[in-house]
Amino acid sequence: MIPTKLLKKYGKKAEYTYTLGPFPTFELLHHHPEYLKQLVVGSQIKPEMEEKARLLCEKHQIPLLQSDRVLEKIREKEACVMAGVLSKYEDAINGFQNHVVLVNPSDMGNLGTIIRTCVGFGIENIAVIEPCADLFHPKVIRASMGALFSIHFERFPSFEAYLEKAGEKRDYYPFMLSGSVSLSALKRDPQKPYSLIFGNESSGLPDTFSKLGQPVRIRHSDKIDSLNLSMAVGIALYDFTKQDFTA
Amino acid sequence: MIPTKLLKKYGKKAEYTYTLGPFPTFELLHHHPEYLKQLVVGSQIKPEMEEKARLLCEKHQIPLLQSDRVLEKIREKEACVMAGVLSKYEDAINGFQNHVVLVNPSDMGNLGTIIRTCVGFGIENIAVIEPCADLFHPKVIRASMGALFSIHFERFPSFEAYLEKAGEKRDYYPFMLSGSVSLSALKRDPQKPYSLIFGNESSGLPDTFSKLGQPVRIRHSDKIDSLNLSMAVGIALYDFTKQDFTA
Repeated sequence: MIPTKLLKKYGKKAEYTYTLGPFPTFELLHHHPEYLKQLVVGSQIKPEMEEKARLLCEKHQIPLLQSDRVLEKIREKEACVMAGVLSKYEDAINGFQNHVVLVNPSDMGNLGTIIRTCVGFGIENIAVIEPCADLFHPKVIRASMGALFSIHFERFPSFEAYLEKAGEKRDYYPFMLSGSVSLSALKRDPQKPYSLIFGNESSGLPDTFSKLGQPVRIRHSDKIDSLNLSMAVGIALYDFTKQDFTA
Repeated sequence: MIPTKLLKKYGKKAEYTYTLGPFPTFELLHHHPEYLKQLVVGSQIKPEMEEKARLLCEKHQIPLLQSDRVLEKIREKEACVMAGVLSKYEDAINGFQNHVVLVNPSDMGNLGTIIRTCVGFGIENIAVIEPCADLFHPKVIRASMGALFSIHFERFPSFEAYLEKAGEKRDYYPFMLSGSVSLSALKRDPQKPYSLIFGNESSGLPDTFSKLGQPVRIRHSDKIDSLNLSMAVGIALYDFTKQDFTA
């Protein structure tokens, strides 16, 4: 058991983070039980859910704690009947597969939604350029509905560091309001892996990205300044992957 | 001036609602100054923004109140230097144009994002089937970034009531996980107006909708249960309107 005094509200420097709620907790148990250090359930949990959790904890030899007090301490806004205590882990993207690259994303809800949408469209590698929102924040995990545990992710100190890993044998598509080709008119080499690159929620990508690969825009009316970031990523993923889903 | 005791935190039955923050407030001033009953600014507002607000208020003969105390009372989570006090108004969709129809949407953030995305893709009529989230809640207005004021919206007590208004001279596309045609393979009559219909965030559309028009699915991997509602709407809008934006 982890001493309960170590179980406190999440902070960026904490050793542990939390899956709040049954859904992301079961996703973690499914994909990475080795990082789940303890499970906490509250008195309001449904008996069948507690039984399911108990059996999985036994199988993976994970300690199970019943404590409303601990849940109250570690939860965010919403009430919560189950939480996983998770060791933060290092991960790495696969340099040969398709990537979504987020340059300085700052909104945790957006980040979670993007992770989940990537999984939905079969993109399993997400690169994040620092400074950026904390991928391990419980709000990100929750917004991803646990999808964080079924992708590979990697943080890079700069875009150059990412480029060094990603290499030249792929196509780069920065998404920019000034992109010279519209997404729906884009012709691309279906054999080559790709990197879809998106900027920060407020500022987008710096102009320097217009010299990288093929800049793309998602056309919309001039009545809005820009699409929401997660919306732009979702639309791009839908369009890039639609031929993968025609079976 | 509205008596300050009437300016309190928003509730569903309130006569007034609020645009919190400069962006949605200026959108309201631009599209519907006639519904803006009063403007409130705080002491932390930037001088140039206060000047802009003051000139617009003079032009439209809208009273301007300086009060940190009132802002503190009416704001939601985020701090706020400017708010508009807005009479809730009735609106109606245009029966001959394209519609997005939301059946029982419950999440206010989703609803605001959807409104903004509709404006971005040139869809200007949104029908909402009750029970549903409150379109006039300050959180919806804020998530829409004021886009609520540049669309037509209408609430209907039932889907049947909507059908009665929308009529037979249009194509209906319910979006369902069980849809018989995939969005990317859909062939449609480009001359006919359409209604894109989406269900509730958790439950989707009831099975009965599969008999209405052409049910459509957005293909995704089986690693997620479904796409986020606003994401599904955004992807559908992108695909349905892409030929409108090729100029």
